[in-house]
Amino acid sequence: MSVGVVGLGLVGGSLARALQAAGVPVVATDPASGGQARAAGLTIADDVAHLAANRPDVVVLAAPLRAMRSVAAELAEALADEPGWDPTVTDVGSVKGPVRDAVTEAGLGERYVGAHPMSGTEQSGFAASSAELMQGVPWAVTVTPATDPDRLLRVLRLVTGPLGGTAAVLTDDLHDEAVALVSHVPHVLANQLLGAVAGAPVRDVALRLAAGSFRDGTRVGFTDPRRTEAMVTENAAWVAPALRLAARDLERLADALDSNAPTHWFFDRPDPVRERLGRGGTARVTGLHPGDADGAGVAAARDVEEVPLTGDWPAELLTRCAQGAVLIALTPESALLR
Amino acid sequence: MSVGVVGLGLVGGSLARALQAAGVPVVATDPASGGQARAAGLTIADDVAHLAANRPDVVVLAAPLRAMRSVAAELAEALADEPGWDPTVTDVGSVKGPVRDAVTEAGLGERYVGAHPMSGTEQSGFAASSAELMQGVPWAVTVTPATDPDRLLRVLRLVTGPLGGTAAVLTDDLHDEAVALVSHVPHVLANQLLGAVAGAPVRDVALRLAAGSFRDGTRVGFTDPRRTEAMVTENAAWVAPALRLAARDLERLADALDSNAPTHWFFDRPDPVRERLGRGGTARVTGLHPGDADGAGVAAARDVEEVPLTGDWPAELLTRCAQGAVLIALTPESALLR
Repeated sequence: MSVGVVGLGLVGGSLARALQAAGVPVVATDPASGGQARAAGLTIADDVAHLAANRPDVVVLAAPLRAMRSVAAELAEALADEPGWDPTVTDVGSVKGPVRDAVTEAGLGERYVGAHPMSGTEQSGFAASSAELMQGVPWAVTVTPATDPDRLLRVLRLVTGPLGGTAAVLTDDLHDEAVALVSHVPHVLANQLLGAVAGAPVRDVALRLAAGSFRDGTRVGFTDPRRTEAMVTENAAWVAPALRLAARDLERLADALDSNAPTHWFFDRPDPVRERLGRGGTARVTGLHPGDADGAGVAAARDVEEVPLTGDWPAELLTRCAQGAVLIALTPESALLR
Repeated sequence: MSVGVVGLGLVGGSLARALQAAGVPVVATDPASGGQARAAGLTIADDVAHLAANRPDVVVLAAPLRAMRSVAAELAEALADEPGWDPTVTDVGSVKGPVRDAVTEAGLGERYVGAHPMSGTEQSGFAASSAELMQGVPWAVTVTPATDPDRLLRVLRLVTGPLGGTAAVLTDDLHDEAVALVSHVPHVLANQLLGAVAGAPVRDVALRLAAGSFRDGTRVGFTDPRRTEAMVTENAAWVAPALRLAARDLERLADALDSNAPTHWFFDRPDPVRERLGRGGTARVTGLHPGDADGAGVAAARDVEEVPLTGDWPAELLTRCAQGAVLIALTPESALLR
């Protein structure tokens, strides 16, 4: 399976490096960092049309969200110039509904399977990319009832195979709602923490006293603000209500503090998640690392569930993943869930 | 200079270990973890009265906030039984106004200099303590116009000497306001992130997709909720208004997202702090490590300012530290600021 990567920023660059390290033929293109990527040993095409001439089996759109429409249009044009080429199109965008709309608008909807690796740093650009950033990453892979099962399988094999990740097969809405909670709102709150200090009369003293709770709580607030803004804005439909809930909770806690009323409801509410993720450890949230498990070994392990790749298996994966299962590996006949 | 430590939890235990490692004579007491601490090689007294019999020069109250009143009363009683003993009393509490009130109520106000090491982990108890936790830590040291300069000096020598920390000399209010922003509100927001996921219908999917932004943003949310609640409640006067500001900001951002209005005001607002702390690095917030600098070397270095220990030098330190300076070392004659 060969892969084309359009866009070589932090995530696209890391993906291209990881695939190449895993022995997958990769051709990539990026008007800005193509030269830098070529110097780093990647195979670079001048533009999307030249990338298309390599006829990769999968094309990954790894451009910024705001460029998805134009990149999808470029790819559609290149496809028209390559009769017989039948690529599956996927992406790495942090929201899925709007990307599916953009891809569908370009006439690529039937080829499309959405994908989102839950990985990143506060840095940007190819210079910050690394194959390691893609190691053991939980991916969301999004589908509709109309998604071609063969194309889904192709993306799932890539994610759980050479990329060594896990895959949650989800609807766009389920992805976008969940990611609002575990990624977009955390980005907003990190910006809020930094912004509140920036505007405070006691700023200089506060920064001198800042320690671990501030450092960790604000880490992703050092992401390029335009990138964060785009991510949050594209997912406004799910982020805005989550922010209103947060605002209401914080107001309620402030009311309780002001009136010396009980506050345990606020501090105990996270208990189910604390228990689930483990308390006091250092690696509470990690992707599974199924790379070392071949199909047989995994299937024999405890707590692994098999979904045969027959009948309406994509719908069955959707149902199970909506309950919290993730795909950890594929055998020739079945999807292995945990 | 000998030190008594009352309370051997995470911070008290780490402090006792760090002092002992630096060659300072330490005697400590804790009804719960005294045995464990003795096994770890610390000198343990059965209770505060026995600790007092050792007549340490400085007594550090490292009990939980809710126990400060009773521990201060015990110490006052023990003092009455040790004529001629003249200890300076300090503490490690995360709020300073309420601790000063408790200590003053016990009749120890004239001996008291407030202190707060900006260090911790999400774990609790002596088992989680370590000398390393106290390395290069920024401390807040709080005073009033009535604070005895000799007692202040004693605490500053301890912090910048054997403990290898930096000290910001502040009023209680300035400390409590600044720490609300860089510690207490971050703790609340970490609990908010965990709590929002705990209550969400998409919880299971969200936790499967959780990656770095959620892990870092929630790290301190794994602190014992009772400890966090106590810290936030004791500093309610500063935390509640900060939470109301945050709630208002989040509502405004939600309004902007819903109406497709500009959002750059929110994402750009942290710029001054991002620039100050450095963007994209991994060690943006760190304490200074002045331990390796002797007085002369530090004084000769650039950007170091000297405050002679004459006249009303505590007031001068207060003024400079309110502007963001910190004490990095003491020579026999002066305080060195950066």
